[in-house]
Amino acid sequence: MTLPQLTLVLGGAKSGKTSGAEGLAIKTGLPKTYVATAQAFDEEMAARIALHRTERGDSWETIEEPLDLAATLRAIASGRVVLVDCLTLWLSNLMAAERDLEYEFDQLISALRDCASPVICVSNEVGMGLVPETPLGREFRDAQGELNQFVGMYADLAIFMVASMHVVLKGKLP
Amino acid sequence: MTLPQLTLVLGGAKSGKTSGAEGLAIKTGLPKTYVATAQAFDEEMAARIALHRTERGDSWETIEEPLDLAATLRAIASGRVVLVDCLTLWLSNLMAAERDLEYEFDQLISALRDCASPVICVSNEVGMGLVPETPLGREFRDAQGELNQFVGMYADLAIFMVASMHVVLKGKLP
Amino acid sequence: MTLPQLTLVLGGAKSGKTSGAEGLAIKTGLPKTYVATAQAFDEEMAARIALHRTERGDSWETIEEPLDLAATLRAIASGRVVLVDCLTLWLSNLMAAERDLEYEFDQLISALRDCASPVICVSNEVGMGLVPETPLGREFRDAQGELNQFVGMYADLAIFMVASMHVVLKGKLP
Repeated sequence: MTLPQLTLVLGGAKSGKTSGAEGLAIKTGLPKTYVATAQAFDEEMAARIALHRTERGDSWETIEEPLDLAATLRAIASGRVVLVDCLTLWLSNLMAAERDLEYEFDQLISALRDCASPVICVSNEVGMGLVPETPLGREFRDAQGELNQFVGMYADLAIFMVASMHVVLKGKLP
Repeated sequence: MTLPQLTLVLGGAKSGKTSGAEGLAIKTGLPKTYVATAQAFDEEMAARIALHRTERGDSWETIEEPLDLAATLRAIASGRVVLVDCLTLWLSNLMAAERDLEYEFDQLISALRDCASPVICVSNEVGMGLVPETPLGREFRDAQGELNQFVGMYADLAIFMVASMHVVLKGKLP
Repeated sequence: MTLPQLTLVLGGAKSGKTSGAEGLAIKTGLPKTYVATAQAFDEEMAARIALHRTERGDSWETIEEPLDLAATLRAIASGRVVLVDCLTLWLSNLMAAERDLEYEFDQLISALRDCASPVICVSNEVGMGLVPETPLGREFRDAQGELNQFVGMYADLAIFMVASMHVVLKGKLP
């Protein structure tokens, strides 16, 4: 199976996004690079990261990069398939590091389009609940929505995961 | 492009609902009326309103009406296309003004069906998170869901926006 | 209309899940069993339960079972259609009773597949908002997502309700 340059796998928490994205990557038959954006700030997160790594097995090359995704993507060789998991933690890391989001989003899109190998981005839908109570919550929700829209606009293929199943938002599953 | 009488554009926060709805309105080629339900209670909201107005440009006639949507819709001439943005802020205004929601919803549906020009309503999906912690939160979430269902039942065309992309829920995009 | 063995009706709060599921059950023309998982802990919940019962009318056999769904499903005769409403309250009851979720989920899936009559399960999507603030909130959201994925994997038919309308996630509406 051949994937287009940019695939977006969007979904709620525990919707099967990562499994869905991994399934797409595996079907390409190409060597796989997993770009992990998670940072283990506490035990709960460390446990999640360890669990994901175990589930993935060791047929993946893993790169941990919490912030500089663009540089990471530009350094990847051709002939591979790349899974970025996930843009939500990346955004959270950017905000904690007080980076300029508009600049970072532009850099990301540009690197996603230039990457020598096709890239699958996993991201969370976070805007379908009530308005968050805190300004930071609203800021995060809005930035995540803008990032998802931005990646969605440039994606060749986009799927929305719901309870392990998917709805095609754009393009056609190969 | 011809739109049917009632179109619903539903989606989460920052999903591209307004842009999607504006795109539909523009494609009709008809003179456009924008019915804004937002009220600037604080600076954050004032900034959002101003940003939306700038993005929209001045090819739109704008009517600001936080509460009496039905009367506003009945006063609109034929030969135009109307965008109501959005039902979520309208609901929030109704609840703050302690209006009778059942009565207001009935009045709205009736005016949407009678409006001399086709109407596109933008509304938020707010019920896909955890149960809100406060009774007011649960009341708002439930009322929004009921309003969305009500408009959905009478809509000729309904789309669900996700990350700037859409899923057709009802009817067929012209 | 004939339903397959297992149908999942998923959706946000007040999305029309129960009505959608009831509509499917009614169209089978079979005698109907309603399995209610709700428990009236307070007046707000008691009012919701009473409202649902009134709306449903008395053409339904009702079984109230907050916890032991598997045993309930195994006791149902053939030639009926069963509606379980809903898995979200069941999960909430399991967590309050400190049951082993993995064991209970396995028992449920097994009973859903063995039930002598076709079953429609209603469940909530709760993972499309921001990360919940409390560990319990995150635990519930994750468990609900895992349960929905699990039932989704075994479902023959799955629909996602949005504002009284639906998107087919799996299978084909008869």
